[in-house]
Amino acid sequence: MNRIGFVLKVKADKIEEYKVQHCNVWPEMQAALRASGWHNYSLFLREDGLLFGYFESPHDLATASAQMAQTEVNTRWQEKMAPYFESTDNARPDRMLVELEQVFYLA
Amino acid sequence: MNRIGFVLKVKADKIEEYKVQHCNVWPEMQAALRASGWHNYSLFLREDGLLFGYFESPHDLATASAQMAQTEVNTRWQEKMAPYFESTDNARPDRMLVELEQVFYLA
Repeated sequence: MNRIGFVLKVKADKIEEYKVQHCNVWPEMQAALRASGWHNYSLFLREDGLLFGYFESPHDLATASAQMAQTEVNTRWQEKMAPYFESTDNARPDRMLVELEQVFYLA
Repeated sequence: MNRIGFVLKVKADKIEEYKVQHCNVWPEMQAALRASGWHNYSLFLREDGLLFGYFESPHDLATASAQMAQTEVNTRWQEKMAPYFESTDNARPDRMLVELEQVFYLA
């Protein structure tokens, strides 16, 4: 089992709207994440929009992301989320994740 | 059970040394963390030194940190770690944690 951390950056003027969206993530998106190996998945937000993701998976981030990328619901969700993130080209957020290195673990 | 996320900033020129220190966290420090309610605790590092912490606890961050602050081993560990972190006054890292807001959870 892998523990995966990544960061993204939400636009400062979109933070409140982003939070509302994440109170209502589509059930079919949640089901696709679970089926693709995204477990115990949390998103955390700093006041300035820095967004940190943590999840546990039998896969690495590349594989878990590739599995999600094969689902139609993910395409729709990423297109809906793209305007919320800082990007030079309005890229899909799931292609902008910056993976972090795990440097410590305590059970 | 609470899921807690926080950030800190490791000095760019201390990153490699910080990583080595965290391969060898004192057993008594690990025991104190567990006894203070720090579980499934991971630290993740971005290349520039941004450090993200995630743990699960029956307590909130303030309470879990206060419990650790009562232990003698934590005082020694925080003094040892202080030079690794960006700070204007060489403050103890456990007094500089910036807590993040959890905005999404998927079991």
